[in-house]
Amino acid sequence: MIIVLKPQTTQEQADSILSILEKEGFRHNYIKGASQTVIGIIGDTTKLDEDSFRTYEFIEDIKRVSEPYKLANRKMHPENSVYNIAGREVGEGTFNVIAGPCSIETEEQVIEIAKAVKKSGASFLRGGAFKPRTSPYAFQGLHGEGLRLLSIAKKETGLPIVTEIMSQQDLPLFEDVDVIQVGARNMQNFELLKELGKIDKPILLKRGLASTLQEWIMSAEYIMAGGNSKVIFCERGIRTYETFTRNTLDLSAIPALKRLSHLPVIVDPSHATGLPWMVEPLSKAAVAVGADGLMIEVHNNPKKALCDGAQSLTPEQFDNVMKKVATQVKFENKKLWQPQ
Amino acid sequence: MIIVLKPQTTQEQADSILSILEKEGFRHNYIKGASQTVIGIIGDTTKLDEDSFRTYEFIEDIKRVSEPYKLANRKMHPENSVYNIAGREVGEGTFNVIAGPCSIETEEQVIEIAKAVKKSGASFLRGGAFKPRTSPYAFQGLHGEGLRLLSIAKKETGLPIVTEIMSQQDLPLFEDVDVIQVGARNMQNFELLKELGKIDKPILLKRGLASTLQEWIMSAEYIMAGGNSKVIFCERGIRTYETFTRNTLDLSAIPALKRLSHLPVIVDPSHATGLPWMVEPLSKAAVAVGADGLMIEVHNNPKKALCDGAQSLTPEQFDNVMKKVATQVKFENKKLWQPQ
Amino acid sequence: MIIVLKPQTTQEQADSILSILEKEGFRHNYIKGASQTVIGIIGDTTKLDEDSFRTYEFIEDIKRVSEPYKLANRKMHPENSVYNIAGREVGEGTFNVIAGPCSIETEEQVIEIAKAVKKSGASFLRGGAFKPRTSPYAFQGLHGEGLRLLSIAKKETGLPIVTEIMSQQDLPLFEDVDVIQVGARNMQNFELLKELGKIDKPILLKRGLASTLQEWIMSAEYIMAGGNSKVIFCERGIRTYETFTRNTLDLSAIPALKRLSHLPVIVDPSHATGLPWMVEPLSKAAVAVGADGLMIEVHNNPKKALCDGAQSLTPEQFDNVMKKVATQVKFENKKLWQPQ
Amino acid sequence: MIIVLKPQTTQEQADSILSILEKEGFRHNYIKGASQTVIGIIGDTTKLDEDSFRTYEFIEDIKRVSEPYKLANRKMHPENSVYNIAGREVGEGTFNVIAGPCSIETEEQVIEIAKAVKKSGASFLRGGAFKPRTSPYAFQGLHGEGLRLLSIAKKETGLPIVTEIMSQQDLPLFEDVDVIQVGARNMQNFELLKELGKIDKPILLKRGLASTLQEWIMSAEYIMAGGNSKVIFCERGIRTYETFTRNTLDLSAIPALKRLSHLPVIVDPSHATGLPWMVEPLSKAAVAVGADGLMIEVHNNPKKALCDGAQSLTPEQFDNVMKKVATQVKFENKKLWQPQ
Repeated sequence: MIIVLKPQTTQEQADSILSILEKEGFRHNYIKGASQTVIGIIGDTTKLDEDSFRTYEFIEDIKRVSEPYKLANRKMHPENSVYNIAGREVGEGTFNVIAGPCSIETEEQVIEIAKAVKKSGASFLRGGAFKPRTSPYAFQGLHGEGLRLLSIAKKETGLPIVTEIMSQQDLPLFEDVDVIQVGARNMQNFELLKELGKIDKPILLKRGLASTLQEWIMSAEYIMAGGNSKVIFCERGIRTYETFTRNTLDLSAIPALKRLSHLPVIVDPSHATGLPWMVEPLSKAAVAVGADGLMIEVHNNPKKALCDGAQSLTPEQFDNVMKKVATQVKFENKKLWQPQ
Repeated sequence: MIIVLKPQTTQEQADSILSILEKEGFRHNYIKGASQTVIGIIGDTTKLDEDSFRTYEFIEDIKRVSEPYKLANRKMHPENSVYNIAGREVGEGTFNVIAGPCSIETEEQVIEIAKAVKKSGASFLRGGAFKPRTSPYAFQGLHGEGLRLLSIAKKETGLPIVTEIMSQQDLPLFEDVDVIQVGARNMQNFELLKELGKIDKPILLKRGLASTLQEWIMSAEYIMAGGNSKVIFCERGIRTYETFTRNTLDLSAIPALKRLSHLPVIVDPSHATGLPWMVEPLSKAAVAVGADGLMIEVHNNPKKALCDGAQSLTPEQFDNVMKKVATQVKFENKKLWQPQ
Repeated sequence: MIIVLKPQTTQEQADSILSILEKEGFRHNYIKGASQTVIGIIGDTTKLDEDSFRTYEFIEDIKRVSEPYKLANRKMHPENSVYNIAGREVGEGTFNVIAGPCSIETEEQVIEIAKAVKKSGASFLRGGAFKPRTSPYAFQGLHGEGLRLLSIAKKETGLPIVTEIMSQQDLPLFEDVDVIQVGARNMQNFELLKELGKIDKPILLKRGLASTLQEWIMSAEYIMAGGNSKVIFCERGIRTYETFTRNTLDLSAIPALKRLSHLPVIVDPSHATGLPWMVEPLSKAAVAVGADGLMIEVHNNPKKALCDGAQSLTPEQFDNVMKKVATQVKFENKKLWQPQ
Repeated sequence: MIIVLKPQTTQEQADSILSILEKEGFRHNYIKGASQTVIGIIGDTTKLDEDSFRTYEFIEDIKRVSEPYKLANRKMHPENSVYNIAGREVGEGTFNVIAGPCSIETEEQVIEIAKAVKKSGASFLRGGAFKPRTSPYAFQGLHGEGLRLLSIAKKETGLPIVTEIMSQQDLPLFEDVDVIQVGARNMQNFELLKELGKIDKPILLKRGLASTLQEWIMSAEYIMAGGNSKVIFCERGIRTYETFTRNTLDLSAIPALKRLSHLPVIVDPSHATGLPWMVEPLSKAAVAVGADGLMIEVHNNPKKALCDGAQSLTPEQFDNVMKKVATQVKFENKKLWQPQ
């Protein structure tokens, strides 16, 4: 961390900062320039609150040199993290596709879709039981009953399940869930993140609507700081001024996260665009850019879907996308996970 | 709601939509133009899911004519909502200033600040006990102990208290709290909003980091749909590409909300800018634009503040701002609430 | 400027940077920390290209300490700039309102509006002869003929005129124009800015659609570097994700510019919002926040306006807004400029 | 176009709109609903100014049904546009890579780079002679001399050249240029676009810093409306709140433009990210998502580059990227253009 002093700073004022740093156990370098004096702080400044220094009127600026996250930092963990989830390898070299309906509606619906997506090559089943809806009048999901139906589909097909949690109070219901999803709107629900740090299940952490990469990694750090190191990032588009797509898919986030962090990263083209005809080209781009997987919405009857039907693929459309994805994954020398 | 059909739509396809509408009990108008055919749906379409129609490949577009919110809608409630909170009128004609530290640290701190802001004209005391921090390593607040200290300050000064909730599980601790704040990061924590809809306390609902006005009003609608009609909006800046200020304060949101809704609106210039020297000019602008109040961070020792010290005013600075605010409020023919 | 080296940097690599700096005539400080080594550059780094250093793979980051602009910088010119334009003082203490139609249509139209806005207290007449329109099929302005009509209105009313230039080739036509406006879309039309730096007329520089404060000041610097120091900033809203208003008016830009620069700043609430009913509250807020003036669209027949009629006030509406603005300006101890 | 009337609208008011429409030659449909009355306008509304209707206080909203662009619209031209530029096919099925330095510096530099990029498979040479720089103190390009050096490189290598124009006054200097580039900052420099509409050279139209897809297509329409139909879009990232990359590359723009328009689209990963290590993954993603080409910055000595060196690849790095791009293009059943 670097502290820049204003030109008129007196020696006494500068000394007051130096003595604080010494008391806190930091070494420092003091550089007096022609127009600018700068203090460099040496040591682990991760927990040092830079804002407390900003209150000195003679301090012009404070600049951080190192990232505020550690456990999620690639510098601390140079190898890619790879998890074994219900027999699937997630991370390096293996490509997993999570597919299923936006929300669980009936036993028939979820089983029919689960069988279809498995056949097309999906390795995980997704489905919402707790649905974050902008309107209180919209369908909110089947809750516990939805989780029960997901479990039935899991038994029927062998597909591990991924589903969203909206409140830590519901955690006891998630026992049979293989990967717990934190949605965009809860990416900074820190109380929820803390609870998820205490359990031993992989967490799929979606990017917040307008979150920076650093905030996103810090939310992963919340979970990891609690002891749960199995976090998977999911890019799902960010909010920009452009309204043609629902959100703007930020594919540059994938190489960025791969450089800054060691955690796996997947892409959700369905929520990113809200446009089913965009799923294929953006899925291919996600493979090419280095993602470890995809999450795609599939519904056996999009017209009648209780939620987000408009962005869902039919099983037939999904099968076509998967054919493209499969050859692309192979071209990238990765392996699409498939049941033996 | 209006459904636009693609040019090649057959009569049979169009009829299939008309018959669905009829089954659902809607009247409709069918307008066949030279290049465009349009179906107008007549009736209360609030709960109609437009997405279910988007799946028909012959439908080009669907356009909503009326707002998806009702209880918060000024059309449903033409008069401004005014609440009596601990003897203070909030809303029309009265101007309230909420002030206090970002986070509660010690009994001495909160009492000293409470006395100071009361003397300068604040009508509510704020202070955080549960702090949403980007980093898991940053100070997270005193939790229950913080709420206890706030209560002591309330007894000492008579100022009603405003403090943030981060999880519905903590609700039992908020009994002595006068106004419960929902922070920007929880604006779409729908499970929390639903719980707050069941209680009988005013809710201060901050705007999400990148929320549209409509999403914000929909979050108020969540609380109101549960039975709690006392919602107060708080504009605190939105996320944009500009980085000079922490966020971009959107003062046009105040006249917009006043037109769309009947709920009171206040402004938080401290979080919006992160710059204490901006609090005065933006507070004055907030009064001029029609806000019903302000929320300002004040700390007796910003340099030592455990959180957001950099954006806090000292009690002396706050006193100066309040002198300007008071004359401005009077100029606007409003009344700054003050103890008798 | 500060250069941060990566942990593994060798002494030889660091020396290569130091020797470049020495050759370019910079003094430097070299600070070797436990985990980070930093080089501080002392001297005027305004013209030093930081990007050339970014190419060294052993350099982790480069941080600028001082602003890249000089002539527009308040540090170089602590007093507010005040201009005398056709007898009006623009800047400190005096408040000027520029009003008129979006585009010049006929002699009758512009004279009728000019007389009306003068009567209500406007001190400048605006009107577009060259119109930047998103569509090539929309009305593009009367060009030279429009400027001729503006001159007639100026003679009739004595109001100095403000009008937009879109290409340096048209400059000869602007002889009788008192203030030349650069629109948002041309804020970084650097060839145009350079030409405007060579003339001796005040330039009204609108903020680009998505320009940072620094980019905006740098565009003023372009004009000033050419020798023309009379630049006036005009905040007209920035592009954000919010679509309720056409743009998001950034009123925090006014105190920011006042701190960073010495140039006058005015506000255009008409283009910022696109909503005539928002002009009054945002005009009042602009006065309160410290702006030096306003630019407001007025049309005698908004329904028939050839451009942007929807956001124009009628002369009666403008008169009402001016009554509010006038008392507000007086309340702020400023003087609304008015003909003697 | 659809006009929505407010509930209280009288028959007389509605009739006034209908009679205007009739005078202008439009057929219409008048639908009186329970709570909403709607007028549908039938006919070519491209040139109808919707804003003129917004001024009626009894009109609630106006909704456009069809796009405001025609010549660039795929509906008007279902086949992909393909151009032959100096023997290269640009568009459908052929993939072209434009490479070269940000700015032309010396004859040796540009020839060395031109030979290198040609060898690696580039089919066009780029290089800036007129440079749009944020700072007036930064290197502005060699202007005419730069164009002369580009011509020499063209003669030496046979590579057609692509270079940016910043003002229509410089057009006579561009005679030997094969593709004229309009930069992001000039995307809405309408006077320049109009001039480019009068010539017979392909125009590479970069997306504005914060332009919507529709505004971008409208700028192409400006050029095409003048008679020059050879426009190529270039996605180069948009401005968002995220600061890790210089801009946010919007790859969903490629399938979107392919659907809305028939014009070729290429991608510039160098300017989009400002990070040379991101060029490879995003180039691959651009191929996968359906782009017709790439524009990549290459410099033989990035450390000494006079402009944007930090984002340039070395010829060796470019050669590596091209190997990946070539196999990816082949995988997509496209043909990388190559000299016979």
